Amino acid sequence: MQRLLIIGGSDAGVSAGLRARELDPTTEVTLVVADRFPNYSICGIPYFLSGEVSRAEDLAHREASEIEAQGVRLLLEHRATRLDPAARRVVVRDPRGTETRLAYDKLVMGTGAVSVAPRLPGLELPGVFLLHWMGDALALHEFIEARRPERALIVGGGYIGMEMSEALSKRGISVTVVEFLPNLMSTVDPDLGARVGEELRRHGVRVLTGTRVEGIAAEGAGLKLEGSDGLSESTDLILVVVGARPQTTLGAEAGIETGIRGAFRVNRRMETNLPDVYAAGDCVETWHRVTQDPAYLPLGTTAHKQGRIAGENAVGGAREFAGSLGTQSVRLFDRVVARTGLNDADARSAGLDPLSVDSEHWDHKAYYPGASRMFIRVTGSRDSGRLLGAQIIGHYGTEVSKRIDVFAAALYHGMSVEGVNDLDLSYTPPLSSPWDPVQAAAQSWLAACTAGARH
Amino acid sequence: MQRLLIIGGSDAGVSAGLRARELDPTTEVTLVVADRFPNYSICGIPYFLSGEVSRAEDLAHREASEIEAQGVRLLLEHRATRLDPAARRVVVRDPRGTETRLAYDKLVMGTGAVSVAPRLPGLELPGVFLLHWMGDALALHEFIEARRPERALIVGGGYIGMEMSEALSKRGISVTVVEFLPNLMSTVDPDLGARVGEELRRHGVRVLTGTRVEGIAAEGAGLKLEGSDGLSESTDLILVVVGARPQTTLGAEAGIETGIRGAFRVNRRMETNLPDVYAAGDCVETWHRVTQDPAYLPLGTTAHKQGRIAGENAVGGAREFAGSLGTQSVRLFDRVVARTGLNDADARSAGLDPLSVDSEHWDHKAYYPGASRMFIRVTGSRDSGRLLGAQIIGHYGTEVSKRIDVFAAALYHGMSVEGVNDLDLSYTPPLSSPWDPVQAAAQSWLAACTAGARH
Repeated sequence: MQRLLIIGGSDAGVSAGLRARELDPTTEVTLVVADRFPNYSICGIPYFLSGEVSRAEDLAHREASEIEAQGVRLLLEHRATRLDPAARRVVVRDPRGTETRLAYDKLVMGTGAVSVAPRLPGLELPGVFLLHWMGDALALHEFIEARRPERALIVGGGYIGMEMSEALSKRGISVTVVEFLPNLMSTVDPDLGARVGEELRRHGVRVLTGTRVEGIAAEGAGLKLEGSDGLSESTDLILVVVGARPQTTLGAEAGIETGIRGAFRVNRRMETNLPDVYAAGDCVETWHRVTQDPAYLPLGTTAHKQGRIAGENAVGGAREFAGSLGTQSVRLFDRVVARTGLNDADARSAGLDPLSVDSEHWDHKAYYPGASRMFIRVTGSRDSGRLLGAQIIGHYGTEVSKRIDVFAAALYHGMSVEGVNDLDLSYTPPLSSPWDPVQAAAQSWLAACTAGARH
Repeated sequence: MQRLLIIGGSDAGVSAGLRARELDPTTEVTLVVADRFPNYSICGIPYFLSGEVSRAEDLAHREASEIEAQGVRLLLEHRATRLDPAARRVVVRDPRGTETRLAYDKLVMGTGAVSVAPRLPGLELPGVFLLHWMGDALALHEFIEARRPERALIVGGGYIGMEMSEALSKRGISVTVVEFLPNLMSTVDPDLGARVGEELRRHGVRVLTGTRVEGIAAEGAGLKLEGSDGLSESTDLILVVVGARPQTTLGAEAGIETGIRGAFRVNRRMETNLPDVYAAGDCVETWHRVTQDPAYLPLGTTAHKQGRIAGENAVGGAREFAGSLGTQSVRLFDRVVARTGLNDADARSAGLDPLSVDSEHWDHKAYYPGASRMFIRVTGSRDSGRLLGAQIIGHYGTEVSKRIDVFAAALYHGMSVEGVNDLDLSYTPPLSSPWDPVQAAAQSWLAACTAGARH
């Protein structure tokens, strides 16, 4: 009977534990969880804070009892403080400060990521929140309930900042987003970010891009934020969501190699350089299927997959992670913005010769009521014709998120843009066209590529 | 300058003509269209008859002038009456009976399909309609406007019959569907057909399955339909939609080989056995990508693809049709039912050893408002683990149609069921889960397959 120890009780850790038990019920699995919230959907935090999800407990992908019913032992509110790979031992500390040594035969590091805390005067003031784990969310929720803020300032225009701007707006709070870069949502191209900004403004969110935040100070019962171009804003609440970084100190100190942004370096079996030590999820470099290079792309979907693989391999499997494409969709008010693969800039950085072509298509036959236009940017290799990536922005309810997935499936298989036309996709007038928008966009790319080659 | 002649002005013919002109603007393209409606979306007929689309002209994928602007000459209301392949000549007849001989260098047959007319006494009575082409739709529309029927009987429970039952219900007509088979919608498994039946009944449609229609008679100003088990129904309108058959008489008489159900036999370049004669769309046998055998699967999506290939090859291309998967989605009231690939019975007929596993999943995270359950049946090969097909039924608005397309893309590439888990699909709580329902269903299949192997 072997002992599998897992540090981290979020997506990667829980997936690893459950998969190990599923494949080998004789394995003794212990999961060390830093907080009281194993397997919570941290992607759901904005919907709890918006009030759309009334109970924080509903955010659990699974209840603790369900995990335990699968034979996974949970050590809640235990922090791993030391890893001794030579002795195959981890020291954990409980809330009272008592330390325990846990021996392992196999170890999975699923320590996740933490919010980046910028060097900013005033970050420690009451009313200023970072947001990553459930504890942060509950603290913010309590603050909102107790203080009923009327104004909020969100520092950071990434997708979490955007989702939070919607969430706080839905609670009747007047929201301003401040982003340092010239556009919102750097995961998509600047002009798609600009369209996202329009959608937010249409719903009453104030958006300040190209604005540097310089400091936060207390002002009466509230706060004051100062920034570039003379920005001086009084507010009741400040949310700082400027990105996440892998939480790898414990492992790195024990000798686990790290790479991009300090994330654990793993091979496609999710093995670190240390024997019998795996790592998965937001704490690792992921392997990008298109560039075939490491990348840092922390996403819940990837964490689940990598955790499952680490768990399988920890009990004798030999499965390889198939790679990330950075596929993502975000819903903001009435729009969905989605991406997969490489954009033009990514592709150029990877030494490719990309061509990106924009087109707009009805989500379904225009004659059927309710049709709306969907913007699709296809990026392909100018010389090989290979599909490299796609970005879509369209109305909520127009299957944007599963349309990006059709591109993702094509990309997974290294299809050419032309090949996308060969896919036998479904059609009925209320839901698509005989050439799905995905294929119509591929045809626009082909026409532009051919026209370009002619010149 | 070569002359490309195309017989048939629906999806395949128009696609062929436009593609040929796009690739070689020197080609002289003539399109012979039997009616006045080139490139109409016949899939949209139910939505015209329901009143959701107010003008029949809106059903045109493209206006005649748009087609002509691409340099395609249209001969409307001309019927091809004789094909002489040795002389490379087609005789066409205009509405006044005048015959013209048209010479060609390359010919594309896009003659489509016609409604099957069962041997049924009374089929010729006023108030009884077959439904396939625009002319049928307009005649039915006029009848409804003039006579304001209160009751309608639909003979045939395939997807067109189902869509028409919804359409006529939406016009306030009381509808009864009579199907000979024990279940509706033979394109999906019987129990999915039964769920479709429940949806129709929930919306007031009366459904009689396992019922044979024996005859129609006039009864006062109305009609009477008699059937098995003493069925005797008075009604104002009868719609007979019991399937379609390829319209191939002209070509077959000229020596084009035919196969399944009399459809033209073509290779993957859409070439018939006659030199320089191509065929595409509902009049041909299609190549099934999973079974690698010919099949008869008339669908608009396939007609567009095959037409495009025939047009390309007619001007010197060498493109091959990638094959059909029979991917299809149908929306009925508040449900969407979709399928791709093989079901259990199809797979067994093809000599495979299938396992079909059912599972239900939330379309998005259950904690986010509006989640609903989606039923997914995955069919895979028990021995090889290869994905063979999938069927989904779920609520309208839950991305059922593009979820079947993720399966279709996986199927296209011959993925294993296990491989579906490796796809990097998008996730955000209002639209999916970290494992998309498609992947959760794949995992259910894997678990059942493993459990089965253990016994």
